[in-house]
Amino acid sequence: MPVLKGDLSAVFEPRRVALVGASDQPGKTGELFWRNLASFPGEVVPVTSSAETVAGHKAYPTLRDVEGEIDLAVVVVPAAGVPAVIRDASAKGVSAAIVISGGFAEAGPGGIRLHDELVAAARAGGVRIVGPNCFGVQNCDLPLNASMAAGTPRGGGGISLVTQSGAYGMAIHSLGLDEQIGFAKVYAAGNKADIGDAELLRYLADDGASRTLCFFLESLPDGRAFFEAACRATPRKPVIVAMTGRSVDGVRAARSHTAGLAGSERVWRAAFEQAGVILVRSGLEMMDVARALDSQPPPVGRRVAVITNSGGTGVELTDLLADEGLEVPELSVKLQDELRLLLPPLASPGNPVDLTPVWSRFAELYPLLVDRLARSGEVDAVVPVLLQRSASDERVAMGIRDAVDRLRADGVRVPVYVCWVAPRTSRPNADLLQAGGVPCFEWPERTARALGHAARYGEARAPASAGAVGPAAGSVAASAGSASAGSALGSASAGSALAGVPGPALAPGWLGIDAAAEVLAGTGIQTVAGRICGTAADAVVAADDLGYPVVVKAVHPTLLHKTEAGGVRLDLGDPSAVQAAAAELLMLASGAAVLVQPQVPGTELIVGGLRDPQFGPTVLVGLGGIFVEALDDTALGLAPLNHEAARGLVGKLRGYPVLAGARGAEPIDLDAVAAVITAVGDLLVTTPEIAELDLNPVLAAPDGCVAVDWRILVENPPGQDQERPQDSPRHAGETRRRPS
Amino acid sequence: MPVLKGDLSAVFEPRRVALVGASDQPGKTGELFWRNLASFPGEVVPVTSSAETVAGHKAYPTLRDVEGEIDLAVVVVPAAGVPAVIRDASAKGVSAAIVISGGFAEAGPGGIRLHDELVAAARAGGVRIVGPNCFGVQNCDLPLNASMAAGTPRGGGGISLVTQSGAYGMAIHSLGLDEQIGFAKVYAAGNKADIGDAELLRYLADDGASRTLCFFLESLPDGRAFFEAACRATPRKPVIVAMTGRSVDGVRAARSHTAGLAGSERVWRAAFEQAGVILVRSGLEMMDVARALDSQPPPVGRRVAVITNSGGTGVELTDLLADEGLEVPELSVKLQDELRLLLPPLASPGNPVDLTPVWSRFAELYPLLVDRLARSGEVDAVVPVLLQRSASDERVAMGIRDAVDRLRADGVRVPVYVCWVAPRTSRPNADLLQAGGVPCFEWPERTARALGHAARYGEARAPASAGAVGPAAGSVAASAGSASAGSALGSASAGSALAGVPGPALAPGWLGIDAAAEVLAGTGIQTVAGRICGTAADAVVAADDLGYPVVVKAVHPTLLHKTEAGGVRLDLGDPSAVQAAAAELLMLASGAAVLVQPQVPGTELIVGGLRDPQFGPTVLVGLGGIFVEALDDTALGLAPLNHEAARGLVGKLRGYPVLAGARGAEPIDLDAVAAVITAVGDLLVTTPEIAELDLNPVLAAPDGCVAVDWRILVENPPGQDQERPQDSPRHAGETRRRPS
Repeated sequence: MPVLKGDLSAVFEPRRVALVGASDQPGKTGELFWRNLASFPGEVVPVTSSAETVAGHKAYPTLRDVEGEIDLAVVVVPAAGVPAVIRDASAKGVSAAIVISGGFAEAGPGGIRLHDELVAAARAGGVRIVGPNCFGVQNCDLPLNASMAAGTPRGGGGISLVTQSGAYGMAIHSLGLDEQIGFAKVYAAGNKADIGDAELLRYLADDGASRTLCFFLESLPDGRAFFEAACRATPRKPVIVAMTGRSVDGVRAARSHTAGLAGSERVWRAAFEQAGVILVRSGLEMMDVARALDSQPPPVGRRVAVITNSGGTGVELTDLLADEGLEVPELSVKLQDELRLLLPPLASPGNPVDLTPVWSRFAELYPLLVDRLARSGEVDAVVPVLLQRSASDERVAMGIRDAVDRLRADGVRVPVYVCWVAPRTSRPNADLLQAGGVPCFEWPERTARALGHAARYGEARAPASAGAVGPAAGSVAASAGSASAGSALGSASAGSALAGVPGPALAPGWLGIDAAAEVLAGTGIQTVAGRICGTAADAVVAADDLGYPVVVKAVHPTLLHKTEAGGVRLDLGDPSAVQAAAAELLMLASGAAVLVQPQVPGTELIVGGLRDPQFGPTVLVGLGGIFVEALDDTALGLAPLNHEAARGLVGKLRGYPVLAGARGAEPIDLDAVAAVITAVGDLLVTTPEIAELDLNPVLAAPDGCVAVDWRILVENPPGQDQERPQDSPRHAGETRRRPS
Repeated sequence: MPVLKGDLSAVFEPRRVALVGASDQPGKTGELFWRNLASFPGEVVPVTSSAETVAGHKAYPTLRDVEGEIDLAVVVVPAAGVPAVIRDASAKGVSAAIVISGGFAEAGPGGIRLHDELVAAARAGGVRIVGPNCFGVQNCDLPLNASMAAGTPRGGGGISLVTQSGAYGMAIHSLGLDEQIGFAKVYAAGNKADIGDAELLRYLADDGASRTLCFFLESLPDGRAFFEAACRATPRKPVIVAMTGRSVDGVRAARSHTAGLAGSERVWRAAFEQAGVILVRSGLEMMDVARALDSQPPPVGRRVAVITNSGGTGVELTDLLADEGLEVPELSVKLQDELRLLLPPLASPGNPVDLTPVWSRFAELYPLLVDRLARSGEVDAVVPVLLQRSASDERVAMGIRDAVDRLRADGVRVPVYVCWVAPRTSRPNADLLQAGGVPCFEWPERTARALGHAARYGEARAPASAGAVGPAAGSVAASAGSASAGSALGSASAGSALAGVPGPALAPGWLGIDAAAEVLAGTGIQTVAGRICGTAADAVVAADDLGYPVVVKAVHPTLLHKTEAGGVRLDLGDPSAVQAAAAELLMLASGAAVLVQPQVPGTELIVGGLRDPQFGPTVLVGLGGIFVEALDDTALGLAPLNHEAARGLVGKLRGYPVLAGARGAEPIDLDAVAAVITAVGDLLVTTPEIAELDLNPVLAAPDGCVAVDWRILVENPPGQDQERPQDSPRHAGETRRRPS
């Protein structure tokens, strides 16, 4: 395979490798890497100035001295020497370097200087950099073991793992070795001086050997690019992400460990969901989902058959599957009758199918039932529970493995996962299943969790699910959204009259009420008419003109949260009420004015927009009213959002059934609300100087909706950032925007 | 120890045991039990009619023939022969029998008949029955192994396990053997023909050897008694419950497996929380919590120190601990300075304390840091993360074990839990720690989960936490509630004027509006005045008398859900509006009347009461309004609830901060709401014929609260049950009562 400069092929598929810092002295890192690279089928050239030869191979003092082309340099010299090595690599025309050495950005000011030198040297010659401060890279199929680990996991598997944590990556890797999990590629990102996660995702999405992509992240500076790459990848292969550094304490721990910070949690959760990413909480969960998806076809629905030799374990597994949104449906009478003929007298042919402790027949019954149930058409996945020594013995394991092989040979695409609850002495039989492509999960909880992820993934991608309801429909809607995200800015709807408004028209700061209303009008968002008045008498005149009942609100730069400041008077039915309210509100602050608006009926919603530092333009929709806000019923989506995606966002609200007409309520105009969401998203996409906007509340009625209060914050667009009008948290744990 | 009849001592601490169905022929169940009972220090007498001797011991044809006293009979003969054996046991004066044999209530009509015969025979002679259809009983300290398992787990531990599922119980037992977990007693409940869970809980709560009580339940028919026993036990020792058969599918699976049904999930969740029970989702989680609490003192707070050799694993663990409500606080500058002197140059002395991969110093540093951090006073628990071979080696494990021994010897009560992420080859070193009393949890997720439970348990019982806020305060409040629950009916408040109202006064069915208002008035609950009118003209007169604005509601037996039926007209300001509204509502149904009430301001709440079939009188409080109801913000508590417990219930609502005055809202009269909750609970306790009651809405204002709509359902009290006016779900997944 030809290696292209600038591409990542040289990292994973090099033809010729140099080890800079090579050694044959036991105990040296250079010797460890020399040994680990020994299995590489191409040539490994030692580079060192301390010896003439390394393990009998001629050594070169520097990369410049090496004869012939080098695709990949593996660098293990101390940090201080690395910039010179990379300058040599640039001069030599080396495509990529894996810098194992630590002592860069993670090690204080001196390290930051070395980091800058390293990056400059690499840029000069177009050398792509892995790390620094990383565990290394493995291509398990080649094999290439350019890592600290003593060996690669089994090749031939489709799991590719990108891990920011070297040591934890090694632990996952070691789990793979212990449990016979096959991998394709393992990549430790370290300090991410050059290659980002989005680029890796794009590369691995196109890599035929990588069928299941895992990212263990502690930071994601290129969030938007990762989102867009994920939107394109997930229809083709599963992308599983563990995002750590989520908690405030976790962020602090992550800071002391790497240079990155996790983004605002609610935004990245929404982004991953929209992109169809499988989000997990831990490395172990990631490996469980990966092995479920990599070795078996995904379930195309949520119906699970459980075969057990323990009623209690079957009940627990059924509960845990239900917690994941899966079903263990009662089997048809016909199928039960058929199974009854095979089973011992006291066994239950329902679901879970309970074999009872008929030890002597397990080796016969488990494979037979796996086969019948998988072919029945009544379930989307089959889970044999192998409990205790009798059910976890070698003959049962081999029988299930062979039954699964036959199903695949016959084109039956119902997956089989084993729930393993057996003594340690039986563990080799689980490995036997695992090596044969049947994933084994210890105890019901891990089984249910992995199966839940697999089923949601499979169902969302099944052709039949396009019209389905529930969480899967959310994913489908998200995929639709992601399709438009693929074309990013181009898909902002044509209705946005603002696309042509030049930046200078919007001065930094909070826009005035009228200016903001004008911006919104340009996007088709309706705002309630109103008049700003400086005196109570003017307010009465305005109310007479607008028609009763009216609302009077205090207007002053210090009163952004009007309701909480007592600055809103509702339902004023006559001139004297208006006179009194206005007079009081004008006293709230020196220089205050009042806004008089007609009172509008409808259900209170919030629609807002923000520009996340990592994920860019993001829209929020939520139910309004102080109680509902306290219950925090909101949904977020990355803009642009087309009409279907905007409807999908509203559909995620817990209060959605009421909006749609449940409990005797009159349904609101959901299309009008979706249009507002789309317009807010488009406005953020086309007008980079809008940093935040708040429509709170939007009053939604059966025949349309209208914003009755609105705020727009204008800033210098990213890149020209000078000063923000107010401090905003840029870290995890808090979205910037808060409903007023 | 003398064995008392009727007590459970004979089950766990027998002096002399008979094995009925004994055999010395390999392959027979009687032979397996004979072998398993061989370790019993007292005499085991074989009973069988098929042989003169068993393994050289004289065998007796029946229990009646045995010379001398028998405390416990272990019965393994086929089901059909069991009733005769129990009749013999009764005649012989045997205290208890463990019936291993299956084929009773779980096996259809014939089995149910045998069950009835068995129970009648046992009752006749006061023989206490374990099972039938069970795995057996173990006392690991004696030892007594009257079970199917080949051995008992390590004795000397304080974990006692009651499991309804025999096979799953065996799996947990086998985990205990594999991982060196010490047990006290293991009890498989099987069909629970005689001994219930509440009685077992009472026995084990008083058993000195049992320090940590685990119940793996599939049903809990004696829910109220279990709740009351748990209220008394949890201040002394942890009670951990896994309740399976929670889901609809799970309930179906449980039905085919046992005779019981899990109760209404929301009620038992509330009951367990109120009683201070630790509720877990699986058997594995149960064992993890049990070993955390049994071998170490519980943490008295939520501050955790993490020591790691992998930054990434430390970050993940920190996140997962935060998900459990725990903190990994930054250490004081003084402590960091002190640690810095011990640590290698690039290590981080913050928290997590990151040692970096200084393999050669792990055996020195891990024990040293465990010691320093545990003694620092800055944390409530210490978690060393042992990642990969280098950190999981024998010297590190022994060093940590010895450090923990020294802490305990010095009276330092900060617990240490190991997070274990190591290859399989290192596992013996985890066993070494575990056997030494230091629990090891594989991977961060199980570590965080166990520690979360332990910390919540410990914090709730720590003297300093009485005034604390957050979930622990909830538990404290619950304990207060449980104290009153201990005295059950006696604590119903004196204000209940109804205690003396005789049953016949309340006829079965829904009470009329006035009758129901009278019942409520007797408890001190205020209801809004109102007048029922048969014509629109009468309604206008009523409105004139009551004062405008008024509310007009349709009244008819078929209109229980008035709002959804369009039967409520609010805010009617003048006679013509009342006239029009009343005229329309009177047309809704033939024979309808209208209720005219003054319109009352306030925040809508729901207060309701129900009589759960398993847990008895239960009170619900929730936020009202259609959106808030859709978001389902409710809390449940078992009655009686004193004022503090009632306040605690309101405090559990997610919208509580708004009720208390957040976001510019005026705080409502929380004491008045609590008084209504207490009154509803007392009413249910003192008046068994009230099956359900609904106050919906209660309007709560800053100066009191008042019910504006109310319903009371009267039934024949339990025991005299004839017919219920409407069908009600009695199973899991749904509370009976639904807000109207």
